Amino acid sequence: MTRRIGYGGDYNPEQWPRDVWDEDYAAFATAGIDTVTVGVFAWAHLQPAEDRYDFSTLDAIVERAAAEGVRIVLATPSGAMPPWLAHAYPDACRVDFEGRRHVYGQRHNACPSSPDFRRLSVALAGKLAERYGDHPAIVAWHVGNEYGGTCWCPRCGEAFRDWLRERYGDLDRLNAAWNTAFWSHTFTDWAQIPPPNALSEHWRGPDHTAFQGITLDYRRFTSDALLGGFVAEKAAIRAHVPDTPVTTNMMGLYQPIDYHRWAPHLDFASWDNYPPEDASPSRTASRMALAHGLMRGLRDGAPFWVMEQTPSVTASRDVNPVKRPGVLRLWSWQSVAHGADAVLYFQLRQSRGACEKYHGAVLDHAGRTDTRVFREVVELGGEFARVGDALLGGRTPARVALLVDWDSWWAVEMSDGPNRNVRYLDVLTAYHRALWQANASVDVVPVTADLTRYDVVVAPLLHMVKGDLADRVTALVERGGTFVTTALSGRVDEEDNAFLADVPGPFAGLLGLRVEETDARQPHVVNPVALDGEVHEARHVFELIVPEAAPGGPAAEVRGTYGADFYAGTPAVTRAVRGAGSAWYVGTLLDDAGVASVVRSTLAEHDLLGPLADVPDVEVAERVTPDGVRHLFVLNHGEARTVRVPVDGTDLLSGHDLRAGDELALAPAAVHVIRRG
Amino acid sequence: MTRRIGYGGDYNPEQWPRDVWDEDYAAFATAGIDTVTVGVFAWAHLQPAEDRYDFSTLDAIVERAAAEGVRIVLATPSGAMPPWLAHAYPDACRVDFEGRRHVYGQRHNACPSSPDFRRLSVALAGKLAERYGDHPAIVAWHVGNEYGGTCWCPRCGEAFRDWLRERYGDLDRLNAAWNTAFWSHTFTDWAQIPPPNALSEHWRGPDHTAFQGITLDYRRFTSDALLGGFVAEKAAIRAHVPDTPVTTNMMGLYQPIDYHRWAPHLDFASWDNYPPEDASPSRTASRMALAHGLMRGLRDGAPFWVMEQTPSVTASRDVNPVKRPGVLRLWSWQSVAHGADAVLYFQLRQSRGACEKYHGAVLDHAGRTDTRVFREVVELGGEFARVGDALLGGRTPARVALLVDWDSWWAVEMSDGPNRNVRYLDVLTAYHRALWQANASVDVVPVTADLTRYDVVVAPLLHMVKGDLADRVTALVERGGTFVTTALSGRVDEEDNAFLADVPGPFAGLLGLRVEETDARQPHVVNPVALDGEVHEARHVFELIVPEAAPGGPAAEVRGTYGADFYAGTPAVTRAVRGAGSAWYVGTLLDDAGVASVVRSTLAEHDLLGPLADVPDVEVAERVTPDGVRHLFVLNHGEARTVRVPVDGTDLLSGHDLRAGDELALAPAAVHVIRRG
Amino acid sequence: MTRRIGYGGDYNPEQWPRDVWDEDYAAFATAGIDTVTVGVFAWAHLQPAEDRYDFSTLDAIVERAAAEGVRIVLATPSGAMPPWLAHAYPDACRVDFEGRRHVYGQRHNACPSSPDFRRLSVALAGKLAERYGDHPAIVAWHVGNEYGGTCWCPRCGEAFRDWLRERYGDLDRLNAAWNTAFWSHTFTDWAQIPPPNALSEHWRGPDHTAFQGITLDYRRFTSDALLGGFVAEKAAIRAHVPDTPVTTNMMGLYQPIDYHRWAPHLDFASWDNYPPEDASPSRTASRMALAHGLMRGLRDGAPFWVMEQTPSVTASRDVNPVKRPGVLRLWSWQSVAHGADAVLYFQLRQSRGACEKYHGAVLDHAGRTDTRVFREVVELGGEFARVGDALLGGRTPARVALLVDWDSWWAVEMSDGPNRNVRYLDVLTAYHRALWQANASVDVVPVTADLTRYDVVVAPLLHMVKGDLADRVTALVERGGTFVTTALSGRVDEEDNAFLADVPGPFAGLLGLRVEETDARQPHVVNPVALDGEVHEARHVFELIVPEAAPGGPAAEVRGTYGADFYAGTPAVTRAVRGAGSAWYVGTLLDDAGVASVVRSTLAEHDLLGPLADVPDVEVAERVTPDGVRHLFVLNHGEARTVRVPVDGTDLLSGHDLRAGDELALAPAAVHVIRRG
Repeated sequence: MTRRIGYGGDYNPEQWPRDVWDEDYAAFATAGIDTVTVGVFAWAHLQPAEDRYDFSTLDAIVERAAAEGVRIVLATPSGAMPPWLAHAYPDACRVDFEGRRHVYGQRHNACPSSPDFRRLSVALAGKLAERYGDHPAIVAWHVGNEYGGTCWCPRCGEAFRDWLRERYGDLDRLNAAWNTAFWSHTFTDWAQIPPPNALSEHWRGPDHTAFQGITLDYRRFTSDALLGGFVAEKAAIRAHVPDTPVTTNMMGLYQPIDYHRWAPHLDFASWDNYPPEDASPSRTASRMALAHGLMRGLRDGAPFWVMEQTPSVTASRDVNPVKRPGVLRLWSWQSVAHGADAVLYFQLRQSRGACEKYHGAVLDHAGRTDTRVFREVVELGGEFARVGDALLGGRTPARVALLVDWDSWWAVEMSDGPNRNVRYLDVLTAYHRALWQANASVDVVPVTADLTRYDVVVAPLLHMVKGDLADRVTALVERGGTFVTTALSGRVDEEDNAFLADVPGPFAGLLGLRVEETDARQPHVVNPVALDGEVHEARHVFELIVPEAAPGGPAAEVRGTYGADFYAGTPAVTRAVRGAGSAWYVGTLLDDAGVASVVRSTLAEHDLLGPLADVPDVEVAERVTPDGVRHLFVLNHGEARTVRVPVDGTDLLSGHDLRAGDELALAPAAVHVIRRG
Repeated sequence: MTRRIGYGGDYNPEQWPRDVWDEDYAAFATAGIDTVTVGVFAWAHLQPAEDRYDFSTLDAIVERAAAEGVRIVLATPSGAMPPWLAHAYPDACRVDFEGRRHVYGQRHNACPSSPDFRRLSVALAGKLAERYGDHPAIVAWHVGNEYGGTCWCPRCGEAFRDWLRERYGDLDRLNAAWNTAFWSHTFTDWAQIPPPNALSEHWRGPDHTAFQGITLDYRRFTSDALLGGFVAEKAAIRAHVPDTPVTTNMMGLYQPIDYHRWAPHLDFASWDNYPPEDASPSRTASRMALAHGLMRGLRDGAPFWVMEQTPSVTASRDVNPVKRPGVLRLWSWQSVAHGADAVLYFQLRQSRGACEKYHGAVLDHAGRTDTRVFREVVELGGEFARVGDALLGGRTPARVALLVDWDSWWAVEMSDGPNRNVRYLDVLTAYHRALWQANASVDVVPVTADLTRYDVVVAPLLHMVKGDLADRVTALVERGGTFVTTALSGRVDEEDNAFLADVPGPFAGLLGLRVEETDARQPHVVNPVALDGEVHEARHVFELIVPEAAPGGPAAEVRGTYGADFYAGTPAVTRAVRGAGSAWYVGTLLDDAGVASVVRSTLAEHDLLGPLADVPDVEVAERVTPDGVRHLFVLNHGEARTVRVPVDGTDLLSGHDLRAGDELALAPAAVHVIRRG
Repeated sequence: MTRRIGYGGDYNPEQWPRDVWDEDYAAFATAGIDTVTVGVFAWAHLQPAEDRYDFSTLDAIVERAAAEGVRIVLATPSGAMPPWLAHAYPDACRVDFEGRRHVYGQRHNACPSSPDFRRLSVALAGKLAERYGDHPAIVAWHVGNEYGGTCWCPRCGEAFRDWLRERYGDLDRLNAAWNTAFWSHTFTDWAQIPPPNALSEHWRGPDHTAFQGITLDYRRFTSDALLGGFVAEKAAIRAHVPDTPVTTNMMGLYQPIDYHRWAPHLDFASWDNYPPEDASPSRTASRMALAHGLMRGLRDGAPFWVMEQTPSVTASRDVNPVKRPGVLRLWSWQSVAHGADAVLYFQLRQSRGACEKYHGAVLDHAGRTDTRVFREVVELGGEFARVGDALLGGRTPARVALLVDWDSWWAVEMSDGPNRNVRYLDVLTAYHRALWQANASVDVVPVTADLTRYDVVVAPLLHMVKGDLADRVTALVERGGTFVTTALSGRVDEEDNAFLADVPGPFAGLLGLRVEETDARQPHVVNPVALDGEVHEARHVFELIVPEAAPGGPAAEVRGTYGADFYAGTPAVTRAVRGAGSAWYVGTLLDDAGVASVVRSTLAEHDLLGPLADVPDVEVAERVTPDGVRHLFVLNHGEARTVRVPVDGTDLLSGHDLRAGDELALAPAAVHVIRRG
């Protein structure tokens, strides 16, 4: 098979008569589709009863694809169990947050602790691997689908207690970790520990818990429990398939699962790109870039796949707009810019019935190939074909790291006090957006990442500080790097207990300050912050900062001050010099311009502002192929405008030579992939 | 008994001492009240224990009414079961959407599949019929009360599976109907099928389901299951009462029950008129007119009863305003204009305690007869008495049909995609309002209605197309009629599976177009649509229309175009000529003026614009008595204004002769009933 | 021990190592803290297993406090049961409104009807009393914590039925009380009566019930059931402790518990002062004053304790602002002004983990004593020390009574009709705020209070009229007093059945009017009311008043009239002269200025307008010590302003002599305690 950017998508021919298959492949050929994902949700089809398998149709599907020269991603169908399974094993269904055992319905519906579900899903994965494992058309295995959700059943309760025994060893350590002396919760027998939900520690939903410790551990346990299913299926595949890579389709900025705990078990990362609607194109675009970065960061920067995106509309939203002309192409190339080696659709042919019947597809209900959507699919397929393998395997070297930490995400949002209106993603995306607009190449990495590679490390809302992170950050700064963190960082240890020290805990000395109080206000309350000659709006939390010298250096210098309330004139933003570097603290939540001011100052310290940093809505990203060739992507998410070509090179899409400094007219949704040289 | 417009209401003398009965009848005589509905909710009273009946008080109630010359509507009390029943048979209580078995409380609380509830309610209906069946004062039987709600208990699950076996015969057909191959839901045993609720296919409530097919069938099943109770009680009555008509009080535009499935079992239609509050008087008025029309349409245009309305306030709303002076009279005459032969109140005497103690009544807690409300009741009673039988049995001939279809209502609102903000009633009432303002006499009919009677057929949001409807519509148009339908019509078949054809499915050829894409936007997004020289606002959904010739004729002509977005300049509203007629398509949701423009164009094609079509808030309706006399009602729902008398005749209320073209000063809430001649 | 205003707070040294205790006491000495509440939530610590008690640490805590000269409030820990209890006795956990049995979690989690919880909590209270009962450092006992919540378990159902048997004697009386004939709810066996919740009579939450009677009785029962726990623990203490007063910490304006039913069982009142955030300082301040008054009124005006307040932030709110500088002092002195003899904090040392880790504390996580918060605590402690016993035991004589009635609160908010937007506290606080701003000294008392002490009695939303209240109000007026009541008063009897008489029932004659209709409108609808030359805004409910002479005197005179709607020009506010006094009726909900107009008119009739009644945001309150010395508190809740000194005297805080009429510059948060003389 030709090496090129994978192109295709989810395909369920078992739901259609054979003559439709012919239509499908004719259209695939027209569109340059070379990859199909088959088998997702086919469990009832492949195994109509516990004691009966039927691979005849899948055999035909695989053979047809192979015959057409189309590559196959073979999925295990465990994302949705069949009715017979739930009927035979009712406790394979989940118990929900409200404490109710569900009966059969929907998908992603199996209890991760059910031994029957585990046994049957793993057996089927093994059967598939045994039968198709050496088929040359199969280029990847895809386990389950969009893992997620939580079960609170008694069996999960038991598994949770086993997980806790493993983690804490004895109850004294657990009681200390959860601070159970508060409110008389000291557990004296493991059996006393319930799954934390609406019937035990919670009120007003999953983020409101009386004991953050138990809830935090239940999220960690849930992430691990779901991972257990993936790992077991993967092992069953590996028993027959030694080399073909195994993945699952993740969901980007998905709060319920800590993908960093999953990363070591994935042979490559893949994810489904359905950005939330947003008024502003750059918010949408930068959010996708952040998610691409997060996914890329799971495997240390290796290329990933976009396993799903819609060619046009979604169906599951309250309101589902069509993708505007050119947007499909623009976003697809953005994926490639950020490291995708394949860009697939959900779905190739539109479903007849049920809840995704109006979800967009390459081929609509009428099977037309003369639609705008199909034409755009064809055009993009043509470009991918023309580019061939020129970009494959490329990486995106970065000197800036953005730290993402699921534990902090969970902890800060389930905290009682200071302010429930602070949402982790809002702050993370605000800082990322500033980096993105500045054309900075950013690695989105876990707090355990090697920081010695970076000049700038940005860590918004790093509420929890674990392990030796503070030491590694200090080392970064000492050797000349820049560290930026924000309000509500450095508050708790790995068990969500407050540091018995000045805020922000392990960072206080490095930052040259302590936070004495944290004011919180309703969303409409604005405190103006003066910063480098401009005044920005701050909201939600206002930390009262006392600059204070520490062993590592002098007290922080004040860079921004509050303009209102009883703390008017006191520091809101500070910068401390430590060794050869500096450490910034932003003690409040600034508006976009305020965040940009801080971020650009830190980038400027290291000469990392990009060539089109001042052009709004235009994205610049770089990908370097294994042979060292650098490709600069220029992507216009906004209105038509003219910019200066940033580098000499050849546009891979138009074939035109471009000279740095020349004028470049960017139409809306314009894409340029400039091979430098 | 005198033949006249029935006047009276719900009456529960069993809750009061006998001396109050004397007061009641004195007041009834003053007010001209000649009809009482007795027995509603009297179960515990009539049958204090399973093995004990006590009809002594009801005997007295019936005899007293008869002695006073008051007609009786005798109700079976099955709208609320007594505590002893629920206590003896706990599974006679419902299981709710959340999967919880209820214990005793409220009303309309019985599981329709409970054999004990069925047995006991039917037995009591039989006892009543046996005892009172030949009483001459009884003019109608009234089974239960405001049927509604849903049960999801295991017994309903079993009954649902029986219903499905009846409908589909075998599981293969069921699996195809529900498209269960999607998400691995192929059922291999009937017992695997659960009632669809929050524990199975649903999330975010009853309109959010993973499988529309199962949910749609559960709604149909529920409608039939409740009907089963009505039918069984009616049969028990008919065993003793050969002729007296049997009805139940319906609720107009009530989404949970498909009244079209009930209609054949009703001897006459009756309903409870509690319009939702609305800022604009014409919205309220036209909505009531629509509901009257729907009820009238159940029995092919035969007169119906308003079984309940409040003389003043409701109690169950968050905010319960009093009816403004004259409104009771205005709305009561509007009922008659649209086909009511009786206008009754809930309630005649105000309840002492519990949740309706503040609901309005003819007689308040103090029993006063010198209140504004009582005076208005007396005045209206006097008018009804004066008019006598002049209007009884009248019908409202119409050349315009508005199609209402519960299946489409359910399907479009439970659809995932394109837009959850599209609500069936909003669109239905918008089109109806335009017809109403144009003084069009409209039949509100099911999609199975005989269309050969009509010149114009309007079908908003006809999402589902069943049976031979498309053929009948085509025939209508071919012979010179006009058909109007809208965005989101013609999408699915009877099983909610998408037509594998161009949108709008079976109507595409007739309409001379295909819809290639459907854009959906948030409610604040407006696309201006230019239509016949005016510009109107369109919202929510924007279909991208491709006019296309079809065997029946040329491509549609473009009547309106979008003014914004990438589809600016493309068709939004079209009209196709087919045979002697035309077919309109409105591919978006227009504002009121836009809808009026389309509707008036179609009415004008058939010279159906009414005499006061341009006078806002003034309603014109016609009722023709069996002797062929035409009565024109002129009802002013707005401010005082002067109009031209539309026809020669005599005002039945004032006795004045009116000449067409003369000035007629309409006070607010004015009512004129002009006997033409 | 020195007699002085108690100062200190909740203290849990069992959660900390001993060296922290040394730090604590050093800080307490600095701050003048002389009182600690210990033992709250220490159950698991004191009784680690059902058969094992461990008082060793508590012994040390008590001895240390005593050695430091610090007074002890010893709490029983029954506010939160330990895990072993819930595990051994699962039905000690509550069943919630949704009908779900909870498992272990949170606090205030025990079923009040659980015999095991009762037995174990009482036994532990007895053990504590036996061991520490004669310890001289213990100045008070504190049972449980913030009693509240409701259980709907089968055992509570049984206890409810016992309670009903006690109340009603037989089912006939119960059926009459609840008006069960409505909707066929006649109970024929006690066992048929369910606890009223989402599975029986309720929908849309606790305020929406089909039968107000059963729900009202369940609230009364719940209040009594929780009280049963308090009474039983108190009895166990009294078996060993003859004299030391016993209390529990209440919550001020807390709707779920009728504190008037609790009052006889408390040796003194205490409460936790966490005012809701509010935009306006006077709304917050007057609301606290109202709550202080309510608590004081429980024990006939005797001094009470503020058992908890935060020194800075709360944690449980969505948004938790810090207390602004001076506010801690201002609010603390306000407590004293209104009768507090002790002002305690929650908490002395900040918790490490779980849901209150960010709740403010005297000592923060770092244990700092150089913070703003600690400094303010020290300053206030110093003032309390300087004032010594000068104010102890003082009372606040009042000639104005504000009636508060939990039954009316419950009844009016669970009523179906006329308007769900009417909230009892909104109206109560509006009338109180007007009194407060006028510097009126107000007793906040139950409807059973002796009214002969008062000149003015204000009774907003007195929906339910019980016992001989109407007679006592009439006597008040006859002898020259003034009575003020509002819309929606006088509607129902003790069983929530409507009076079968003109509205407002027993008050109609006294008020010289009847209410014929009650209009209700959406919140945005304003009807202007002209009143004493001003026009005020009225909203929500508009009663149509007919002045009517009654045996006691002439018809009411009209003081205010509606300006809009069909009842424009009719009475909105009236005043009836009866005997030597007058009775006001405000038939709608007026804005603040309108309420103030009425309230000030009534105060002026008795020369009760205070010296700074026209100075916004400045509070004046008086406390008279047992020796007859009068202390006038002047508290500035607003911006800086200058006022006239109202009386001659000496400022206890500054030591300055003040002369009536001199200028007094009030800084923001200024406090003056003027000892008159």
